[in-house]
Amino acid sequence: MPSILVLHGPNLDALGAREPDVYGRVTLAEIDRRLRELAGSLGCEVESVQSNHEGVLIDALYAARPRVDGFLINPAGLTHTSVALRDAIAAVGRPAVEVHLSNPAKREAFRHHSMVSGVAIGVVQGFGADSYCLGLRALVSYLGEPTHRVQTTS
Amino acid sequence: MPSILVLHGPNLDALGAREPDVYGRVTLAEIDRRLRELAGSLGCEVESVQSNHEGVLIDALYAARPRVDGFLINPAGLTHTSVALRDAIAAVGRPAVEVHLSNPAKREAFRHHSMVSGVAIGVVQGFGADSYCLGLRALVSYLGEPTHRVQTTS
Amino acid sequence: MPSILVLHGPNLDALGAREPDVYGRVTLAEIDRRLRELAGSLGCEVESVQSNHEGVLIDALYAARPRVDGFLINPAGLTHTSVALRDAIAAVGRPAVEVHLSNPAKREAFRHHSMVSGVAIGVVQGFGADSYCLGLRALVSYLGEPTHRVQTTS
Amino acid sequence: MPSILVLHGPNLDALGAREPDVYGRVTLAEIDRRLRELAGSLGCEVESVQSNHEGVLIDALYAARPRVDGFLINPAGLTHTSVALRDAIAAVGRPAVEVHLSNPAKREAFRHHSMVSGVAIGVVQGFGADSYCLGLRALVSYLGEPTHRVQTTS
Amino acid sequence: MPSILVLHGPNLDALGAREPDVYGRVTLAEIDRRLRELAGSLGCEVESVQSNHEGVLIDALYAARPRVDGFLINPAGLTHTSVALRDAIAAVGRPAVEVHLSNPAKREAFRHHSMVSGVAIGVVQGFGADSYCLGLRALVSYLGEPTHRVQTTS
Amino acid sequence: MPSILVLHGPNLDALGAREPDVYGRVTLAEIDRRLRELAGSLGCEVESVQSNHEGVLIDALYAARPRVDGFLINPAGLTHTSVALRDAIAAVGRPAVEVHLSNPAKREAFRHHSMVSGVAIGVVQGFGADSYCLGLRALVSYLGEPTHRVQTTS
Amino acid sequence: MPSILVLHGPNLDALGAREPDVYGRVTLAEIDRRLRELAGSLGCEVESVQSNHEGVLIDALYAARPRVDGFLINPAGLTHTSVALRDAIAAVGRPAVEVHLSNPAKREAFRHHSMVSGVAIGVVQGFGADSYCLGLRALVSYLGEPTHRVQTTS
Amino acid sequence: MPSILVLHGPNLDALGAREPDVYGRVTLAEIDRRLRELAGSLGCEVESVQSNHEGVLIDALYAARPRVDGFLINPAGLTHTSVALRDAIAAVGRPAVEVHLSNPAKREAFRHHSMVSGVAIGVVQGFGADSYCLGLRALVSYLGEPTHRVQTTS
Amino acid sequence: MPSILVLHGPNLDALGAREPDVYGRVTLAEIDRRLRELAGSLGCEVESVQSNHEGVLIDALYAARPRVDGFLINPAGLTHTSVALRDAIAAVGRPAVEVHLSNPAKREAFRHHSMVSGVAIGVVQGFGADSYCLGLRALVSYLGEPTHRVQTTS
Amino acid sequence: MPSILVLHGPNLDALGAREPDVYGRVTLAEIDRRLRELAGSLGCEVESVQSNHEGVLIDALYAARPRVDGFLINPAGLTHTSVALRDAIAAVGRPAVEVHLSNPAKREAFRHHSMVSGVAIGVVQGFGADSYCLGLRALVSYLGEPTHRVQTTS
Amino acid sequence: MPSILVLHGPNLDALGAREPDVYGRVTLAEIDRRLRELAGSLGCEVESVQSNHEGVLIDALYAARPRVDGFLINPAGLTHTSVALRDAIAAVGRPAVEVHLSNPAKREAFRHHSMVSGVAIGVVQGFGADSYCLGLRALVSYLGEPTHRVQTTS
Amino acid sequence: MPSILVLHGPNLDALGAREPDVYGRVTLAEIDRRLRELAGSLGCEVESVQSNHEGVLIDALYAARPRVDGFLINPAGLTHTSVALRDAIAAVGRPAVEVHLSNPAKREAFRHHSMVSGVAIGVVQGFGADSYCLGLRALVSYLGEPTHRVQTTS
Repeated sequence: MPSILVLHGPNLDALGAREPDVYGRVTLAEIDRRLRELAGSLGCEVESVQSNHEGVLIDALYAARPRVDGFLINPAGLTHTSVALRDAIAAVGRPAVEVHLSNPAKREAFRHHSMVSGVAIGVVQGFGADSYCLGLRALVSYLGEPTHRVQTTS
Repeated sequence: MPSILVLHGPNLDALGAREPDVYGRVTLAEIDRRLRELAGSLGCEVESVQSNHEGVLIDALYAARPRVDGFLINPAGLTHTSVALRDAIAAVGRPAVEVHLSNPAKREAFRHHSMVSGVAIGVVQGFGADSYCLGLRALVSYLGEPTHRVQTTS
Repeated sequence: MPSILVLHGPNLDALGAREPDVYGRVTLAEIDRRLRELAGSLGCEVESVQSNHEGVLIDALYAARPRVDGFLINPAGLTHTSVALRDAIAAVGRPAVEVHLSNPAKREAFRHHSMVSGVAIGVVQGFGADSYCLGLRALVSYLGEPTHRVQTTS
Repeated sequence: MPSILVLHGPNLDALGAREPDVYGRVTLAEIDRRLRELAGSLGCEVESVQSNHEGVLIDALYAARPRVDGFLINPAGLTHTSVALRDAIAAVGRPAVEVHLSNPAKREAFRHHSMVSGVAIGVVQGFGADSYCLGLRALVSYLGEPTHRVQTTS
Repeated sequence: MPSILVLHGPNLDALGAREPDVYGRVTLAEIDRRLRELAGSLGCEVESVQSNHEGVLIDALYAARPRVDGFLINPAGLTHTSVALRDAIAAVGRPAVEVHLSNPAKREAFRHHSMVSGVAIGVVQGFGADSYCLGLRALVSYLGEPTHRVQTTS
Repeated sequence: MPSILVLHGPNLDALGAREPDVYGRVTLAEIDRRLRELAGSLGCEVESVQSNHEGVLIDALYAARPRVDGFLINPAGLTHTSVALRDAIAAVGRPAVEVHLSNPAKREAFRHHSMVSGVAIGVVQGFGADSYCLGLRALVSYLGEPTHRVQTTS
Repeated sequence: MPSILVLHGPNLDALGAREPDVYGRVTLAEIDRRLRELAGSLGCEVESVQSNHEGVLIDALYAARPRVDGFLINPAGLTHTSVALRDAIAAVGRPAVEVHLSNPAKREAFRHHSMVSGVAIGVVQGFGADSYCLGLRALVSYLGEPTHRVQTTS
Repeated sequence: MPSILVLHGPNLDALGAREPDVYGRVTLAEIDRRLRELAGSLGCEVESVQSNHEGVLIDALYAARPRVDGFLINPAGLTHTSVALRDAIAAVGRPAVEVHLSNPAKREAFRHHSMVSGVAIGVVQGFGADSYCLGLRALVSYLGEPTHRVQTTS
Repeated sequence: MPSILVLHGPNLDALGAREPDVYGRVTLAEIDRRLRELAGSLGCEVESVQSNHEGVLIDALYAARPRVDGFLINPAGLTHTSVALRDAIAAVGRPAVEVHLSNPAKREAFRHHSMVSGVAIGVVQGFGADSYCLGLRALVSYLGEPTHRVQTTS
Repeated sequence: MPSILVLHGPNLDALGAREPDVYGRVTLAEIDRRLRELAGSLGCEVESVQSNHEGVLIDALYAARPRVDGFLINPAGLTHTSVALRDAIAAVGRPAVEVHLSNPAKREAFRHHSMVSGVAIGVVQGFGADSYCLGLRALVSYLGEPTHRVQTTS
Repeated sequence: MPSILVLHGPNLDALGAREPDVYGRVTLAEIDRRLRELAGSLGCEVESVQSNHEGVLIDALYAARPRVDGFLINPAGLTHTSVALRDAIAAVGRPAVEVHLSNPAKREAFRHHSMVSGVAIGVVQGFGADSYCLGLRALVSYLGEPTHRVQTTS
Repeated sequence: MPSILVLHGPNLDALGAREPDVYGRVTLAEIDRRLRELAGSLGCEVESVQSNHEGVLIDALYAARPRVDGFLINPAGLTHTSVALRDAIAAVGRPAVEVHLSNPAKREAFRHHSMVSGVAIGVVQGFGADSYCLGLRALVSYLGEPTHRVQTTS
């Protein structure tokens, strides 16, 4: 059964309470609950980490590597700037799907470029909490193709 | 029951036969079949149009307007250049989801900008034929929220 | 009596129904009616073509060439991108006036540059349907100067 | 009866004598005469000011504010650089129409951007003295719509 | 005997009559006649299509694919903007030679970049009708190398 | 009595000892002492946090939210790069004033743009430790206007 | 007792009456009154000049030089364009503080760069009339340091 | 005997007293004296105007036109920004030589471009007061060629 | 009988031995042999020079001027940088054809711009050694038109 | 005996296991071992720190300051973005040598600029683990010059 | 008696024969003759070197160093590209004056930037052969100031 | 025993005498002596060439190819501009190490980009003469790995 780590970047723990016209009213706990539920129906396991620290997110990628098959990542504000996060995703060698709650193409110009997309298999953006669920479906489908599943050590 | 028009832009009728390392081996007919199947399970209807002509795609948007609730669009090569297609999507006033088979962020720099994203509710890219299916799910979910469904005339 | 072809670019057939805060509430039929009325008082004839197809507009320029003295063109979304339309206007060798309903300088940055202006005698923008009427006046006045009237074959 | 102030920017008092291939042979006095004549037929009043001083033009905008309903402005060389003139037009709160004798799109690249267009209701360019007359028609038509006429204090 | 499709882009049907200082005085019919004549001496067949419609040119590439060995393309105004045409040339999988009558390097800056060159085997530009003839020679020579000839289905 | 959190970004704990020609000779402890003293005379409370970690600063913003009325922030090196810090300031929903010891306009070009200014109410820069004191005055004055004070939960 | 000249750039005499959502409702007379009051409590003298003429502002800088110790300048629309004003401030050799009522970082991109900041000791922006008062405090504090006070001739 | 107007732009009346490391220690009066002396030996007459007002300089160009044969201009801070001054020089139709005391290529990047050079016959920069003298020699030499002398009305 | 000088730029003497996937396996001697052979059949003479020195190539252009009718130039690495070579081609006043073995549009971005194309009559690129032969044909054909042949002194 | 701190930036703890074609197969432990060995032969001491956290690296710089004479830094992904790390290196006031395993000039464009190089004494890049050893030699040699050794407090 | 080396860059030996509308009709021999004549009257000596080789010009700078007091340089096409020439001028440590026959500001954009100006004391451009004579005067005048004359070894 | 050619670019023969604050006081002869000494201890041979001529350096690369195993290159001023030198290094097919005495990242912006780095195995910059010695060590170490040594013909 594939195992997937969900990484929530900076400020996402504040979801649901603030700026609902940009990010919607769903809380991060609710998103995690919906992902676990969907994971059950898709036959996979999910765990999730949120941090406002770039370094914690990178550490989490490496720590999870032996036991997970792929990553679902919302890099939030680090999307546009973090070469270190990009390098970590590339180095860990597990497929990663990038998701965004809002559609960056409708926001400030500095949000139009993602440092992460170039090392992700694909991107889902603009659908609120649904972006996560669709991203999970995409990742599980990708892992389901025989050539894509990396053999984990555990 | 929501009705959705799928628009396939230039060169997509050649899918499956050529450049499989970029676009995969699935044909457009197969994609349309999978979308119809998924639509059935999601409780909606899909029809689809492919054209290599920008004008035909724009005409199709207007023609479909009275009877459809939303659009699933893969603008292909027009993604990066067509202000006319962007204006049509904005003018038609139905929610649109942009999809791409490949992940443009991994390709040439001129593919990194989309003229369409700014008027789409969201984007799904990089998952081959799955991009369409995920995009359909996103659109149906969006239309399922009471405030998002536009009252069609038919 | 000078004869003038009015070319309406992509999406303009949707005028009056959608995005009235950008383009106003007048329909294209109403604009054409006002242009014919004004043409009568200015002593000229107008016919008009609308298309969402770049190629149809270019074909129309060449087809009209033997019988018209000038062009009134709203290139709409093609304004910013179409080198082919620009080349056609230059090649046809009849004076052209560019008009826009809205004022592109108040909209997105990608609308600030026009490919067409460099081959038009002048531009009128921002006055809604009046832009067309003022453009027609400008063109008729221009054609009224003896050195500007090209001898048509019909 | 609406009252309109015509502002002629730097170098326009030299019209008619120099660089006729760029600006035509009509003098500023002749343009003002044609504007007064047209104003008579349109049922409005015009007065005009020319200055080579940015500050004088800004002062004139404020001084005229209590008694005029709109502005017809040819900012000439200040078009491309003057944030102060732009701010004045925005601050005065009367509709302004921007006009140019020549078509800047056919001249040097530094003339392709206008600081003023973003605060003008519209632009007329390229028709020589006719640009002024068409601009006056546009402004009077605009003021004729009930929602556009600002109540002046005089 | 190799078979080659010549594609003439927008405005090229107007050749010979207008802007002779840019494009020369030869008509398109004359160019096609010269190409057929040269094809005879080179032992190949040519057919040609002209269209002002991007979509028609793309359709023609796919329609010709089963029976032709290569393409000789003058994309004209589409050279600088059409990602869709570029994608079609890449997708069709036949060698293409890009030709231009004039030398774009001597014209406006927006003509200095070609979207097509990156998927063409080579480019010939600046020699008027000779550009086509030289391009045909280049293509036939290229096809004459055993490793370059694709096996067509007819 | 309004309560304000002062955030000192990376490297500011080294103040006073190094690069005095850029940042002055005052230590951070001295700045905090001066701010507390001024806060007393202005009738508000201040606490302060310094960190070289972007994540710690973001965490501090959220942790302080229930008990503080505004933020005084010197983002230091994060000023120019941190979208995550910008997003946090926007998300927390309390007025923030940005301060800098030196005047970035006199330093390297990469310091001329601030990611934070767009979500701050205002900026004070170039006056050494006085920048903080002036920023505190600005913030307290802003909070003193009835419409600006957010109701905190404590 | 230090003497300070306050320079108000173009359009600032219109303060309080127009565009209050950008600049607030305080008039320039009120700002000058508040500055004089604050100057009294800080032990300095202020005089002020407003002009819509770049040249008048530059002349004022030189004229005031023999009798003033520093300048408080709101260059308004000249902020972004005037090299001449920048040169004058540098040439006069008295410390200058730049102030802005609004926060330019929240407005159009052409307002993000200041020609003046590079020759000012510091900047205060975004606090309405408070920007002036804070700027005056900053300047007086700066002049109070023994090494900063220039010996004036009067 | 040719007559030449010397125009000194903003801040040049402050020469000799301030920023001597950039502009040298010579005063404007001394420069004018040296120019008159040199004019005597070259057989021409010079008069000079200094102003901090763009408009005054433009007015001076037109006022001098009937009686002068050429212009020697140090546009100072207006060099880099004034389209109006450029247009005036072009419109007046007398040869102009641009001079600078310092070498702008050694200063800030915004001083590297001159709006005036494109309408000047040539430029002399970097030689302090000598720049003026060399510029006068250049202009007199230029006027001495029979084809270059414009017939003045006086 | 027209006489043509072939100029081979830097590194071309290494042809055939190294980087065959970029430049092919033909040696420069072989290219020269093929050009002489083709020249015979076209009724012209060719001589050729190769140098890794920009100055030698420029000297060769001037030295050949009295006896040659045109130039066939592969500027190689100098293509993208040499203003001096460009100026020499323009100064010599003989028609020049630019050729490249590879297609620069498929290589690094710094190879996309040619300093030479703007002074060449045309360009042939991407066909390996055929580029030279096609370029020779183009040049001979060009010289064959009566108005193009310059009268040489020998 | 000089003491040197080696700082390894984000992702470097993953060395040797992943992406060996970019970074080689040597582990970080092996690099540290080789550095200690080389340090012995050069007569200096090294200690090393690796972290995926920007803040931890900055803290380490300050903490080490009292006891070390210089820094050997591989900023990894922070190279291109971290102003905070740059400021820390500058503030700490000890010579720093920047090293990279790979040659950034051969990788993506966003890796071509280093924020750190401007405050480092020099750079060694592209030689795998040798980059570190060469960097250590460079730093020890630099410290060996009498004027370069800063007096540490311990 | 000061001794000056005149350096003429690439293509200048072709002066007088070709492109007279850009460079005038004077030959290089004539320019050298006029410089020698002027040198006589100014009490200095000139020698001159022309080369189409960057390296020869650099060698000449070093070779002349022991015996000359300054350089008069027309870098021609090398102006815009040669860092090596710039470095040589800086390294040789003798004052250099840059001259141009034409006014680069009136030519192609790639001629607007000079690599040499930043290390020259000043520039004279646009006056044909007079540019050299004026440059010589500027250099001799500069050398005449006691602090500027470097003590040569001969 | 590996054999290495050291290439010193333009102006490096002037080392030690001029601009010591940029390049240090060591002469080129001293650098060559130190390299020979180090080569002895590393078990390799070095020879060196200096030239101010790009072409001579390129010729030297080809001439040395049969007998050398690698190159140590300080391209000096050619670093930033020479595509021809870059192409030569790539074509010769021997490993090359790029070295610089100074750290270009601390100098003018036009020195921040190197044309050579993309074809070098690595770069050493900023350590004065040590850069050469470190570069030699890097090259010898690289050649010492069995897969890196190219079989030379001698």
